Amino acid sequence: MPYDVKDIDLAPSGERSIDWAMRHMPVLANVRERFSDEKLFEGITVGTSLHIESTTAVFLLTLQEGGAELAVTGSNPLSTVDKVAAALADKGINVYAWRGENEEEYYRNIEKTLDHEPDFLIDDGADLISYAHSEKGDILSKIRGGSEETTTGVKRLRAMHKKNALEIPIIAVNDTPAKRLFDNRFGTGESTVNAVMSITNSMIAGKNVIVVGFGPVGQGIAMRTDGLGADVTVIETDPIRALEAAMQGFRVTNMDEASKYGDIFITATGNYKVIGKEHFEKMKDGAILCNSGHFNVEVDLEGLEEISTESREILEDIKEYKLEDGRKLHVLAEGRLVNLAGEKSLGHPAEIMDMSFALQALSLEHMVKNDLPVKVHEVPAEIDRKVAQLKLEAMNIEIEELTKEQMEYEESWKLGT
Amino acid sequence: MPYDVKDIDLAPSGERSIDWAMRHMPVLANVRERFSDEKLFEGITVGTSLHIESTTAVFLLTLQEGGAELAVTGSNPLSTVDKVAAALADKGINVYAWRGENEEEYYRNIEKTLDHEPDFLIDDGADLISYAHSEKGDILSKIRGGSEETTTGVKRLRAMHKKNALEIPIIAVNDTPAKRLFDNRFGTGESTVNAVMSITNSMIAGKNVIVVGFGPVGQGIAMRTDGLGADVTVIETDPIRALEAAMQGFRVTNMDEASKYGDIFITATGNYKVIGKEHFEKMKDGAILCNSGHFNVEVDLEGLEEISTESREILEDIKEYKLEDGRKLHVLAEGRLVNLAGEKSLGHPAEIMDMSFALQALSLEHMVKNDLPVKVHEVPAEIDRKVAQLKLEAMNIEIEELTKEQMEYEESWKLGT
Amino acid sequence: MPYDVKDIDLAPSGERSIDWAMRHMPVLANVRERFSDEKLFEGITVGTSLHIESTTAVFLLTLQEGGAELAVTGSNPLSTVDKVAAALADKGINVYAWRGENEEEYYRNIEKTLDHEPDFLIDDGADLISYAHSEKGDILSKIRGGSEETTTGVKRLRAMHKKNALEIPIIAVNDTPAKRLFDNRFGTGESTVNAVMSITNSMIAGKNVIVVGFGPVGQGIAMRTDGLGADVTVIETDPIRALEAAMQGFRVTNMDEASKYGDIFITATGNYKVIGKEHFEKMKDGAILCNSGHFNVEVDLEGLEEISTESREILEDIKEYKLEDGRKLHVLAEGRLVNLAGEKSLGHPAEIMDMSFALQALSLEHMVKNDLPVKVHEVPAEIDRKVAQLKLEAMNIEIEELTKEQMEYEESWKLGT
Amino acid sequence: MPYDVKDIDLAPSGERSIDWAMRHMPVLANVRERFSDEKLFEGITVGTSLHIESTTAVFLLTLQEGGAELAVTGSNPLSTVDKVAAALADKGINVYAWRGENEEEYYRNIEKTLDHEPDFLIDDGADLISYAHSEKGDILSKIRGGSEETTTGVKRLRAMHKKNALEIPIIAVNDTPAKRLFDNRFGTGESTVNAVMSITNSMIAGKNVIVVGFGPVGQGIAMRTDGLGADVTVIETDPIRALEAAMQGFRVTNMDEASKYGDIFITATGNYKVIGKEHFEKMKDGAILCNSGHFNVEVDLEGLEEISTESREILEDIKEYKLEDGRKLHVLAEGRLVNLAGEKSLGHPAEIMDMSFALQALSLEHMVKNDLPVKVHEVPAEIDRKVAQLKLEAMNIEIEELTKEQMEYEESWKLGT
Repeated sequence: MPYDVKDIDLAPSGERSIDWAMRHMPVLANVRERFSDEKLFEGITVGTSLHIESTTAVFLLTLQEGGAELAVTGSNPLSTVDKVAAALADKGINVYAWRGENEEEYYRNIEKTLDHEPDFLIDDGADLISYAHSEKGDILSKIRGGSEETTTGVKRLRAMHKKNALEIPIIAVNDTPAKRLFDNRFGTGESTVNAVMSITNSMIAGKNVIVVGFGPVGQGIAMRTDGLGADVTVIETDPIRALEAAMQGFRVTNMDEASKYGDIFITATGNYKVIGKEHFEKMKDGAILCNSGHFNVEVDLEGLEEISTESREILEDIKEYKLEDGRKLHVLAEGRLVNLAGEKSLGHPAEIMDMSFALQALSLEHMVKNDLPVKVHEVPAEIDRKVAQLKLEAMNIEIEELTKEQMEYEESWKLGT
Repeated sequence: MPYDVKDIDLAPSGERSIDWAMRHMPVLANVRERFSDEKLFEGITVGTSLHIESTTAVFLLTLQEGGAELAVTGSNPLSTVDKVAAALADKGINVYAWRGENEEEYYRNIEKTLDHEPDFLIDDGADLISYAHSEKGDILSKIRGGSEETTTGVKRLRAMHKKNALEIPIIAVNDTPAKRLFDNRFGTGESTVNAVMSITNSMIAGKNVIVVGFGPVGQGIAMRTDGLGADVTVIETDPIRALEAAMQGFRVTNMDEASKYGDIFITATGNYKVIGKEHFEKMKDGAILCNSGHFNVEVDLEGLEEISTESREILEDIKEYKLEDGRKLHVLAEGRLVNLAGEKSLGHPAEIMDMSFALQALSLEHMVKNDLPVKVHEVPAEIDRKVAQLKLEAMNIEIEELTKEQMEYEESWKLGT
Repeated sequence: MPYDVKDIDLAPSGERSIDWAMRHMPVLANVRERFSDEKLFEGITVGTSLHIESTTAVFLLTLQEGGAELAVTGSNPLSTVDKVAAALADKGINVYAWRGENEEEYYRNIEKTLDHEPDFLIDDGADLISYAHSEKGDILSKIRGGSEETTTGVKRLRAMHKKNALEIPIIAVNDTPAKRLFDNRFGTGESTVNAVMSITNSMIAGKNVIVVGFGPVGQGIAMRTDGLGADVTVIETDPIRALEAAMQGFRVTNMDEASKYGDIFITATGNYKVIGKEHFEKMKDGAILCNSGHFNVEVDLEGLEEISTESREILEDIKEYKLEDGRKLHVLAEGRLVNLAGEKSLGHPAEIMDMSFALQALSLEHMVKNDLPVKVHEVPAEIDRKVAQLKLEAMNIEIEELTKEQMEYEESWKLGT
Repeated sequence: MPYDVKDIDLAPSGERSIDWAMRHMPVLANVRERFSDEKLFEGITVGTSLHIESTTAVFLLTLQEGGAELAVTGSNPLSTVDKVAAALADKGINVYAWRGENEEEYYRNIEKTLDHEPDFLIDDGADLISYAHSEKGDILSKIRGGSEETTTGVKRLRAMHKKNALEIPIIAVNDTPAKRLFDNRFGTGESTVNAVMSITNSMIAGKNVIVVGFGPVGQGIAMRTDGLGADVTVIETDPIRALEAAMQGFRVTNMDEASKYGDIFITATGNYKVIGKEHFEKMKDGAILCNSGHFNVEVDLEGLEEISTESREILEDIKEYKLEDGRKLHVLAEGRLVNLAGEKSLGHPAEIMDMSFALQALSLEHMVKNDLPVKVHEVPAEIDRKVAQLKLEAMNIEIEELTKEQMEYEESWKLGT
């Protein structure tokens, strides 16, 4: 069984952390039990590009229980947890990933994953699917479908489809209400504040936190930094979202203005160079910058490098840039997604990944059972609903049910004032 | 000029309150100015069924500035503010409405409104449009379109359309992001807590508040009662919404359980008998019940009457029901929408109605300029966006703009990790 | 039985509102029952200067149940609720108060109250006690003690004592933890936001609210406007309080800066002219100003009048001041404490007054049973604790109890790491 | 220069983390500069028992700059950061501490610290001062004073003084408003949630968090877990605090009830066995328990061990206890203060320690300059105020100042309604 990990001897330690994650993933446990009975994926190879950490492992083992053969690589050069990769390799999964890959290694591992000629691709950021399209035309025809986890990835795949470049059906797992509400908002919100606190040991309370972007991810970050006592400012380009932020009591302004008083800047736009040279020039000495969007392009690091006289890592995952006038700016985790890419970053809590991966697992089942046309599909609403129900059950929450009369009322229209 | 109001002498006092509202409606002021120049509505008659209060008056005067002839009735027997109705009549608008209409009067006033043979209908709850369909087939063919303001009304009209009963095109003003986010959530949230406080002078802090329904309206109420220090419980039938409530820190359970400990119950489901006999039986002595949904059917008042030994109004808009075992339950504003129907209820803040009525005004313009097919249409996205932009300008908020490079980035897909 | 009220025929209506308040005052109900048995106050006359509204009535009736003879006046020319005054008169209490007294009438009513030669004084703002000292030296020696309800009043009485001008023992009811935490913070916070919303029907969400003063009252207002979605700025002169506000996520700055962007200003400092000419000059057109401090001196109305070209009441309790450059500023309820002085202001929720008046009632009992030396006393801690316990019981909350072992642990010191 | 640390070679790495902390401690920087000029502590030896981490190092170096000779040990067997201890040793400070001392080593290190015959003691938990009293009578007479940082320590020292066992003057640094508000509440609140998230990677949002104790520490934890989306329950024995918690919207009940539904329990009472066998018996499978109080006695670990069939560390700082019926309970960081004792625990953010240590530094200066009588003293109010002012300056916050007129107004009492 081929694999390429940092150190296979880390397997036992990785296994313990997978075990801990498993305890907080009751929805996936429910799914795993059924898959184990049904062996639905026998004879099927699944290639994945995902952040390799304990919760992902629980997902991969769920597919394995269902009979799938797996070929696995990371979705970010810094986000692989080596002990988890080792534990997966030890369990017979073909893993090609380690923390700190350079760009060449990163793409070589994607290549190796695709060499297994997977039937389905599961992606986080669309690197795997893009690469299959641009570099592996030979195996593309064999691939029956793929799913994509992130906002950024879905955006890329939609853009591909618009240009007629997409050749396999995709399920946009990112786009379900459950994913947007829980993973993007609550998950990223919580893991981002935890990462910032853990990397910097800097106070959130009393700080001017500038959240750039008020999509689900930015909303989550704004909500949680507010909940920790920060004075939160929101930067948005969409007027409806900007207004929503204002009505929730956030200060709303533009980057030029916010650059002058921000203590901590967190980007979550999915766009690029949203913090650039013109903003660095205005910032306070000691400002902290980080990113929770998928790619490391939101903070213009090249621009920052250009206007700096020197830069050095002063603490793990904190890089100091010294500007000509002596001000120092601090960039966390190289501007990569801070909740995953830092050494102390933990990624989403297991409870969140429980839902996201259950959506993935059930979406894969849906693709296996149905032949989908080539386009970007939404997750069927009943899958979304099912996952939410299982989660509520796991939380011991009984919700109200509509009576027959009430369902009829929903349909009627003649009842008036 | 025909009208039918409580007391025309109230006009000057009504005018002052319209003047005050106008100061807080800058978006509509912007629209009014343009309409006044363009006289777009000349020769057109508009029939409306709306809650007649100062902000509605600002809207109606905006249409009048644009050249429209207006025929106006209320959308709820208890929500008309008589001094405002008088001021409108005084300004040459055909008003048929007063606070405290009985059912017969309510429908007679709808009838009179339709007698003006309007070209367009603007509705709040769909009573006017329904009535035109069921009782005024003769004038129906003349009507070019209608718009509907509420969740409930849109639901009714969609149900009509599903049964092929709809004969005019409708714009669902309720369904825009701006309306849902701002009017339903922020507007109803704020006006509901204000109404409950004003009617009862009862503390919100420290109370167990049970919010029944977690759509935009219920979310707003939950958010604001939480912000005032209540321990909020949410009742929902939809698992995704229920889970969202739980992740926001609300207690989520079913009505049976919540009935035992709730101090204040507020319904916002759009459904009927969501609080019924089986729940009254479990409630604490002194519990307060009210409704923010469109119709007065959410609390089962007939059922409550049946199990009560006596009932009386003990304070304005507070009716006490005495149960056999001596417990007393209190229903506010006869179970009608509490933020509008109570004597002290003020309806939405003017700032909110500013946006909702600007959407209405621009949607009417859209219908006048375009011949729409018969169905329930969404508000064009650019109208929604425009209203949000005007609002931000009025709030002195400058938002960030995408650069040309960033817009291109949004379209691209080849940039990778 | 002498009295002087607006209209004795309002008594039945007043009685109903007292009845409603009584249902939300379970602690006082508990006390009243005991007083009724013990008739502790027989032969004793109590003179009071309090805001005459339904909850105060419940308190006064509690003393009457205990056997006291009562002479009662208001503590603010605008805060008397006439129907409540009528109901009290009807129940044999000597009431001298009506809404809208001029200054002469206000002091004449104080005079009449003192003419009953009370044994004890209960005061709210210290006008009654001050007047007894400065104008009624003849009866002063007969007075056995007094109690004072407010921060401002206690400050005045402490200042008197410092100058050796105080001649009777005082219990500072204001100064207990229970009063500061619940009445000043939660009570004023909630009733102030309700009053501002009711008077203006203006949105709180999305507004820049400037809270001037961050003592318990200001904290309550900041907490509640924040909870309603405002972007709250705090103005303070004390560095520790200012820092606390900052750490809670509020924007903290000085009045000059805040004057430029505030939409709604609320004062709660206990000091004078905290908003003055230099600030009015900087304010935005349409700004709203109001006060929750005891006296109407916090907003410099004389200064505002001087720089205005005209002023008029444009809506009930909203006075518009037009400045030379055309900007309009709006002052609510004449700058008097907005949660009590407006026609729509309801004062504290009954649940709060339940505690404050229970403290008053038990403090009066304490003074009757003990001869206190002349100075400003604190409420005995056991009274404070007792009131909190009764309240928790009324809320059905069972709290944890220390075991005997745990009490011993509290005393020990040898147990180490 | 004697020292005893884990590994002196860690010094460079420790120095970098001290450097990072220094950037977030501007108040202490201000003090250090002055001390460096004044060399006030020359010839003086200071013995300290403090959590040895980067911020403490900044404090110790501040005293060293002032000329002090230092002898240093840890205040908890698990809280020493070895690289920081190494860096201090490298800078000529006598350090006796490492992470993971056993009890014997812990007390031996205290002994060695006292062997330097310090003039002043600075303590965190009162172990050093207690030990000096009980075991080192010989050097006690030489000690001129001490200061104590924690609630628990001050309680112990007050108990000692009550029994006439205290022989040196103590300044209770814990008891200043600045310390209670900022360190205990904001500092512990933030560092506790961060530690729980970092150790468990478990979601806070949607969880039932049970906060045991609602003093400043418990308030901070409740505020922050609420801000992260938990449904927070508060357990208290004091009725006033319990009522305050209820009015802030927290659920308040007793331990028996909360034990049934809690997901995460956090103790902060300063008392012992507040979670005991009778509670473990009722808990849900998977419940997480931890402590933020000073000593590891709040969760009854002996009791838990007794009723468990086995226990093991399943992840770093997570110990699983398996009960007879198969339920598993998880205790974090051995029940020691979770924000300091875990491997991933970071202690208070530097910004908080900046204030606490500035209070310590200025209190030491106060003791050096004044001969205090033997008792537990409060920190002079002007020191507290000074520290808050310096902090506000460092945050670029300008606060409002009282005018001369306003100061006079504060003193006056004749101004009336």
